Amino acid sequence: MINIGLDIMGGDLAPLATLEGTLASLSHLGTDTQLHLIGPSEVILSFFKEKGIPVPDNIQISEATEVIEMGEHPVKALQSKPHASLNVGFSMLASGQLDGLASAGNSGAVMVASLNALKSIPGVSRPCVMGAFPQLNGSYNVVLDVGINVDVKPELLVQFAKLGVIYSKQVFGVSNPRVGLLNTGEEPTKGSLLYQKTHELLSNSKEFTFTGNIEARELYDDRVDVVVCDGFTGNVLLKQAEGFYHLIQQRNIHDSLLEKFNYELYGGTPILGVQGNVILGHGVSSARAISNMILATEKIAKAKLSDHITKAFN
Amino acid sequence: MINIGLDIMGGDLAPLATLEGTLASLSHLGTDTQLHLIGPSEVILSFFKEKGIPVPDNIQISEATEVIEMGEHPVKALQSKPHASLNVGFSMLASGQLDGLASAGNSGAVMVASLNALKSIPGVSRPCVMGAFPQLNGSYNVVLDVGINVDVKPELLVQFAKLGVIYSKQVFGVSNPRVGLLNTGEEPTKGSLLYQKTHELLSNSKEFTFTGNIEARELYDDRVDVVVCDGFTGNVLLKQAEGFYHLIQQRNIHDSLLEKFNYELYGGTPILGVQGNVILGHGVSSARAISNMILATEKIAKAKLSDHITKAFN
Repeated sequence: MINIGLDIMGGDLAPLATLEGTLASLSHLGTDTQLHLIGPSEVILSFFKEKGIPVPDNIQISEATEVIEMGEHPVKALQSKPHASLNVGFSMLASGQLDGLASAGNSGAVMVASLNALKSIPGVSRPCVMGAFPQLNGSYNVVLDVGINVDVKPELLVQFAKLGVIYSKQVFGVSNPRVGLLNTGEEPTKGSLLYQKTHELLSNSKEFTFTGNIEARELYDDRVDVVVCDGFTGNVLLKQAEGFYHLIQQRNIHDSLLEKFNYELYGGTPILGVQGNVILGHGVSSARAISNMILATEKIAKAKLSDHITKAFN
Repeated sequence: MINIGLDIMGGDLAPLATLEGTLASLSHLGTDTQLHLIGPSEVILSFFKEKGIPVPDNIQISEATEVIEMGEHPVKALQSKPHASLNVGFSMLASGQLDGLASAGNSGAVMVASLNALKSIPGVSRPCVMGAFPQLNGSYNVVLDVGINVDVKPELLVQFAKLGVIYSKQVFGVSNPRVGLLNTGEEPTKGSLLYQKTHELLSNSKEFTFTGNIEARELYDDRVDVVVCDGFTGNVLLKQAEGFYHLIQQRNIHDSLLEKFNYELYGGTPILGVQGNVILGHGVSSARAISNMILATEKIAKAKLSDHITKAFN
């Protein structure tokens, strides 16, 4: 049995998008998966009532009467609202009632709760978030960090490589993931001092297959399975890809590969290195994005991602 | 009279692409523009002979018997080959025989020659290179630095802003360019320490209109005219855009706006802050790219870009 939690009140379009997304996901969930909707039970129940359908068997409702708004100060909000859906969800995850938790809510609060309620996995100095980038051959690679750690040391980038390799293996099923360091050129001496030193450390690592520097122009060419970078640059990469997709939409272009740039298909960003499986959704998540976020959370929970990371860093 | 120099031997596909590009550009050049082809005269003359056409009136040939190869060490090559096309070209630019110089050759050598033969403009602590990114409304914005300065201080990013504003005004004709700081979010506290401090400095600047942070997802939305970032991040942005264009081509998509991501249309990257108008072309430049690089060089030479920067920094 896999237990997945969804923060019903998280996201700009919640609770309608989260509840509609829930409905859309149900038929795709495994038969041994239970989805826990965390939020005010009256909101959840009245949704099903209005739809004219009974609460499905694979849904559980976990009462959470308070809501952390998108603009609230993360630490203050978490402290002052013990019954917020995020606090309830993270407690359930920390206690083992859940195998995975998804929220498209206040991203700062999700990060703070991940660090405070779950804590980092021993050996992981700073957790990170990852993005999956579509490849020309139809697969995805893993880019990390895409947002949390904007001021980093070379040793931390090596840790991101290790986390990315575990994800690539356990979730994408790549047997020997190739690791590339994002940089401005092929040569080991390219890039800032941070990237030069990181190249040296990665070259000396025997834990995984480091294939050298990768330029952003090769990001979609299936050259590597894991792309390592600092959280500032990774965030820029991720958001530029989002900007591209926006252009594609504006130009009314329909293409099965380019459609994969739609964040809605991926649904969210896994947080790697904390003691639990957490996916953070985009603030503007639609029902479609929520549905895919639920399925992505089921996938990493089934893969026991957090357990594999714990084992690798032990 | 405007005098433009082209390094005939610069680029992976030189001299064929440079000479074919020259031919393609001729009918688009202003009537008062002279194009100086810098390279071995026998190579240039035999090209026209094979084409069966006399050397056009608006072309001058400047003899340069040596060639700096793409893979050579910049400083050593420039020193050991005084008659290389790059050395001859930069001497002509430094002495005022040329108003602008274009090369798709060894980029390190072009940079070293720009700094050594031309020198920085007084007041400019480190020159930078810029990219032009297409906008949904059909215009372009200016992103800088896109490659040279990968380890920077906040004060340098402010200087990039100033250089970008001059370019936007003088070359793109924008009367009051809006400046944005590339960052991971809107709030002034977003991003690395470098970007937080830069935001503060830009906010206090009275020299131009700073509109705040801009996220990479908004890069194509005509939100700003100048985007400021460090050279590492800017290089990643530029190359991801190149990778994106590659995807578009691979998927056989034809769209007038997306076609603007084709670097061949822009032809090269201006070097800002040195005492002369220099455009550095892509190493793989085709004849089409060379032709557009020549026209871009004519444009910045006509705009007297370097003079305007000198005046602004005086």
